[in-house]
Amino acid sequence: MIKVGIIGATGYAGQELVRLLLGHKDAEIVWYGSKSYVNQKFASVFGNFTKLVDDICKGDDLDRLADEVDVIFTATPQGYLAGILTEDILNKAKVIDLSADYRIKDVSVYEKWYGIEHKSPSLIEEAVYGLCEIHREDIQSARLIANPGCYPTCSTLSVAPLARRGWIDMKTLIVDAKSGTSGAGRGAKVPNLFCEVNENIKAYGVATHRHTPEIEEQLSYIAGEPVTINFTPHLVPMNRGILVTAYATVNGSHTEDELKQAYIEDYSDEYFVRVLDGATPPETKWVEGSNFVDVNIKYDQRTNRVIMMGAMDNITKGAAGQAVQNMNLIFGLPEQEGLRLVPMVP
Amino acid sequence: MIKVGIIGATGYAGQELVRLLLGHKDAEIVWYGSKSYVNQKFASVFGNFTKLVDDICKGDDLDRLADEVDVIFTATPQGYLAGILTEDILNKAKVIDLSADYRIKDVSVYEKWYGIEHKSPSLIEEAVYGLCEIHREDIQSARLIANPGCYPTCSTLSVAPLARRGWIDMKTLIVDAKSGTSGAGRGAKVPNLFCEVNENIKAYGVATHRHTPEIEEQLSYIAGEPVTINFTPHLVPMNRGILVTAYATVNGSHTEDELKQAYIEDYSDEYFVRVLDGATPPETKWVEGSNFVDVNIKYDQRTNRVIMMGAMDNITKGAAGQAVQNMNLIFGLPEQEGLRLVPMVP
Amino acid sequence: MIKVGIIGATGYAGQELVRLLLGHKDAEIVWYGSKSYVNQKFASVFGNFTKLVDDICKGDDLDRLADEVDVIFTATPQGYLAGILTEDILNKAKVIDLSADYRIKDVSVYEKWYGIEHKSPSLIEEAVYGLCEIHREDIQSARLIANPGCYPTCSTLSVAPLARRGWIDMKTLIVDAKSGTSGAGRGAKVPNLFCEVNENIKAYGVATHRHTPEIEEQLSYIAGEPVTINFTPHLVPMNRGILVTAYATVNGSHTEDELKQAYIEDYSDEYFVRVLDGATPPETKWVEGSNFVDVNIKYDQRTNRVIMMGAMDNITKGAAGQAVQNMNLIFGLPEQEGLRLVPMVP
Amino acid sequence: MIKVGIIGATGYAGQELVRLLLGHKDAEIVWYGSKSYVNQKFASVFGNFTKLVDDICKGDDLDRLADEVDVIFTATPQGYLAGILTEDILNKAKVIDLSADYRIKDVSVYEKWYGIEHKSPSLIEEAVYGLCEIHREDIQSARLIANPGCYPTCSTLSVAPLARRGWIDMKTLIVDAKSGTSGAGRGAKVPNLFCEVNENIKAYGVATHRHTPEIEEQLSYIAGEPVTINFTPHLVPMNRGILVTAYATVNGSHTEDELKQAYIEDYSDEYFVRVLDGATPPETKWVEGSNFVDVNIKYDQRTNRVIMMGAMDNITKGAAGQAVQNMNLIFGLPEQEGLRLVPMVP
Repeated sequence: MIKVGIIGATGYAGQELVRLLLGHKDAEIVWYGSKSYVNQKFASVFGNFTKLVDDICKGDDLDRLADEVDVIFTATPQGYLAGILTEDILNKAKVIDLSADYRIKDVSVYEKWYGIEHKSPSLIEEAVYGLCEIHREDIQSARLIANPGCYPTCSTLSVAPLARRGWIDMKTLIVDAKSGTSGAGRGAKVPNLFCEVNENIKAYGVATHRHTPEIEEQLSYIAGEPVTINFTPHLVPMNRGILVTAYATVNGSHTEDELKQAYIEDYSDEYFVRVLDGATPPETKWVEGSNFVDVNIKYDQRTNRVIMMGAMDNITKGAAGQAVQNMNLIFGLPEQEGLRLVPMVP
Repeated sequence: MIKVGIIGATGYAGQELVRLLLGHKDAEIVWYGSKSYVNQKFASVFGNFTKLVDDICKGDDLDRLADEVDVIFTATPQGYLAGILTEDILNKAKVIDLSADYRIKDVSVYEKWYGIEHKSPSLIEEAVYGLCEIHREDIQSARLIANPGCYPTCSTLSVAPLARRGWIDMKTLIVDAKSGTSGAGRGAKVPNLFCEVNENIKAYGVATHRHTPEIEEQLSYIAGEPVTINFTPHLVPMNRGILVTAYATVNGSHTEDELKQAYIEDYSDEYFVRVLDGATPPETKWVEGSNFVDVNIKYDQRTNRVIMMGAMDNITKGAAGQAVQNMNLIFGLPEQEGLRLVPMVP
Repeated sequence: MIKVGIIGATGYAGQELVRLLLGHKDAEIVWYGSKSYVNQKFASVFGNFTKLVDDICKGDDLDRLADEVDVIFTATPQGYLAGILTEDILNKAKVIDLSADYRIKDVSVYEKWYGIEHKSPSLIEEAVYGLCEIHREDIQSARLIANPGCYPTCSTLSVAPLARRGWIDMKTLIVDAKSGTSGAGRGAKVPNLFCEVNENIKAYGVATHRHTPEIEEQLSYIAGEPVTINFTPHLVPMNRGILVTAYATVNGSHTEDELKQAYIEDYSDEYFVRVLDGATPPETKWVEGSNFVDVNIKYDQRTNRVIMMGAMDNITKGAAGQAVQNMNLIFGLPEQEGLRLVPMVP
Repeated sequence: MIKVGIIGATGYAGQELVRLLLGHKDAEIVWYGSKSYVNQKFASVFGNFTKLVDDICKGDDLDRLADEVDVIFTATPQGYLAGILTEDILNKAKVIDLSADYRIKDVSVYEKWYGIEHKSPSLIEEAVYGLCEIHREDIQSARLIANPGCYPTCSTLSVAPLARRGWIDMKTLIVDAKSGTSGAGRGAKVPNLFCEVNENIKAYGVATHRHTPEIEEQLSYIAGEPVTINFTPHLVPMNRGILVTAYATVNGSHTEDELKQAYIEDYSDEYFVRVLDGATPPETKWVEGSNFVDVNIKYDQRTNRVIMMGAMDNITKGAAGQAVQNMNLIFGLPEQEGLRLVPMVP
């Protein structure tokens, strides 16, 4: 039985980790860390866990935690883990970080987009970017996982098969993304109030969103060339779900069938990526509460562009689900353990 | 392995049965019945089942189905099953009916409130009302289960401990209920369109809703006296969830603690009923996607009334989840098999 | 032209006042008061007013404000106005207070339910409760208006015709109310976040909500006897709207037609109260954005109870709209001036 | 007083026309046409008009109607008006058509994208495309107005200033649009049910949506060159609102300020177009219920692309509001008459 500690258990991603791990037969949570609710009953913060979790929230003593558990999930603000993580901790426990601290290899890029100094740049190189469908092999032997951002996960998986083959002109790539509001976190801020979000849609972080360099880094790796994109996220009045609509000009001459076939080939062995039949566009509802990413494409011969679409649950595959998938890989468990979640409709 | 057939698999309750049974280790669905989508791929109707269900929808040949399966779930319009169910079918397979056809013992009451003639009244007596927490013993030996309505399930469990003890004046009982829109079904009707339901709340079926006599019959059985109530359902702009707020005058003299203790005692062995701590009112979000019913009470000494509250997911505990719970009881399986669902937040 | 000052213009009710007064031909806002946004452009806080309002937010200097305007609207936290209002201010300008400070005549009741000391109890007696359909005459000569709470407005108007005639047993009255989330204000609090409210319904303030004594005081006045009720508000995932479902036992013998006729008579001259035809239950959507209250009743002869229903927009008739209606009465303008708003659907 | 007839008054756009015209001092509706509800009270279909409209719904006898009114609004299915409109009718009354029948000058393009034969192609040339900010002069003398589609209105106004100046490469233009659900109409279809739309987002009509050639025709006119674009609409779980996010490569060298200045110049005299300050992205909530279009841009020097954004209410400026604006222009009234609507928040 893998002993698990969570730092940041009372955020939306943190409590989703709890939901998933309660159904995982080889893992047991022994530390519910939450700065804001320390000494309070975890189930008093998230009533869904009434009678399922009796634990009291603990603090964030990472050193002590590392002694007690096999793996630590950190669902913490940017910069937090980078400020306290040490070689010593990594020698004692695996660390799967849901923040952005170790996702970007070039520390100056991180510091520029996040506007904070990185306190442990020496650990960045070792960290493995935990997008399992892309970096599976490296993940299996990692001590430190940089669990991907929600937008980068969905964007990368939606574009990868064509980027990999060089079938799209990466200089023309535009990613227009739409996210449910849980992606904004559980902080008490006016823009996230029900009456501000409900019956409204807007773009935000236009040309400046922090997930941009992360997507670019992954797509550069996959395409084998430096990639610079436009990425525009939008806030949608729903709890969960991310939809990516990406556009690129097709290189050379490819039929829609050929383009589609690239997805079918690349994802035929991937349980969590579902290539939809025919022209069916992905819908976030079809993946809600699960670790699936649904993808499909449409080729427009009028403009010689391909529209690449992906849908997933931002706090499952986009955060907690992928973190558990990483844990499974690291500990040599079946990749789907605890993640055979059937999407919930309606 | 229990072989399962579903008639009405493409309604909201039907497809929830599929979601639950896919995670049930002792059951296997072999018949996805759907009049409207016969010969179409089930997963093309409900995209959440892509790659999880490959089956094609079949028709509603109950006789043939009874030969092939151990248990039949019928999630069909009122009057449908009563028109085709026979002794012969019941000899071959257990039947768990999610419609109202066999819920009400007095056929004249059924015919009055539903406005249709009952075609197989002789089978009513045998049918067991499948509210597991109330009729567990009878369910275990039943051939035909009348799976309870969503409102009656939540109303009965919210009121039962005090009704059973005679601690409330049943003549004063008022049940004000609020439901998500999935309770209205998947029929293409103008009042259920997004733009009609969203940003709106209204009462409906005021003093005439068909679940009224069903609640009254169960509470009469529990209270040991004829019960007549006011029941008012409301339509809430959300997908899932039912909330019951019930009011009654307290008989004799009871403290809030005594009243609460009745719930704690009655439900201490019930996995699916959670009596909330302190004054916490139930919220539908805390039970979403699970088979739990959360209950709590508040005594108001100013009026000598007790406010009894219950929350559950209308298509899980209120329909498909309870149906699986009934199946488990009939087949001697652990009652929670396939139903250890952690509620999903947010 | 009436000169208007608003204290608390950047709350939901405050900015609704702005929306309404921009369409009022005899009023002009000259002071947009907002503690949190002082010196910021009002339209930068509420983008809907872009190009319509160029003003900068000012502070809350009530004395200076009283010199500059004819009427002051205060949409401020409980206790605020009571702490600074003086005879001198009332000599200079009319005050319409949207908080609860002067609504309850018995100061000890106010202090008990609100848990704060009242700092200007001597002004309570003079204040007129601004429920125009009930206290029209007194309002016309008032200097200080206690603008009613949203729940009390809807509850009182839904019950008044039967309470007035003694046709219902006031000891049996139960008010079950449902409100959109704007009623919770614009404060940055976790329980009001989109992901906490959306896809959820719950009761709150059960048996303890502060609007209870306010409803009781008005109904006592109307019924001519002391009234004690159960009042239970619920939070609904929508922006605007309040729905009241009230229950009471009918005194003596009255047909549904007689009961309905009471509403038709009492409200025949009331522009803002619409008695719906036949059995149509009120829906909040039908009144959204307007100053209307829609009411209807249903008599249940099985229980001898009448179900009284009312729907209105909580921040229009339940706050800012009624405040403007009060202003019109005080200044001798047509009561509907600026309030001939057609409800917006969908 | 202009006498108005509406065919299709019980659709969402039709009833919005009623809402707007009730507040128009120079227009009076004398014919509420509705095929589905003929002889029923209009206010019984849309309860928001209770006590405001007493009229009974009439049929669709266009000839008779033309005798009785000055202007006819048709909010009817595609192909309907083209099948019955005649020179004779146009001689008797102005016609403002909210369907697509006369929007596209090349009848073969219309027939290809709409899949229906056009029954009165001879009238297409005369019809004026009623995008007031672009074709104001022609509208003033028109008999037949092709009222623009919602997506084309928002897309065209968001892109026009840069297209007009040749400052963007029209071959690179991509329009990613998001719409509230009222755009799908009031037909009883499963995909528009609350439980299908709520908590979900998806693209639809990818590379095939009928508004594509309409946008292309307008932008070709403005840019002075043939324009072919990618246009992808998405369905958002909200009632009202359209958001456009458009991307294009900048021609030559232009600063963000220069690009922004183009919008400020072009729209300085346009009451209904609001160019937002600074980097504020448009939000649909800020225009809800009004005839405004909010626009803004962001230049990304990393990719040399400009992101052009626009937000409006799809059934006001995107349908009924623009139709009234056209009526005002035709009849020589102030363009804003009846349309000085303050957006409603929240």
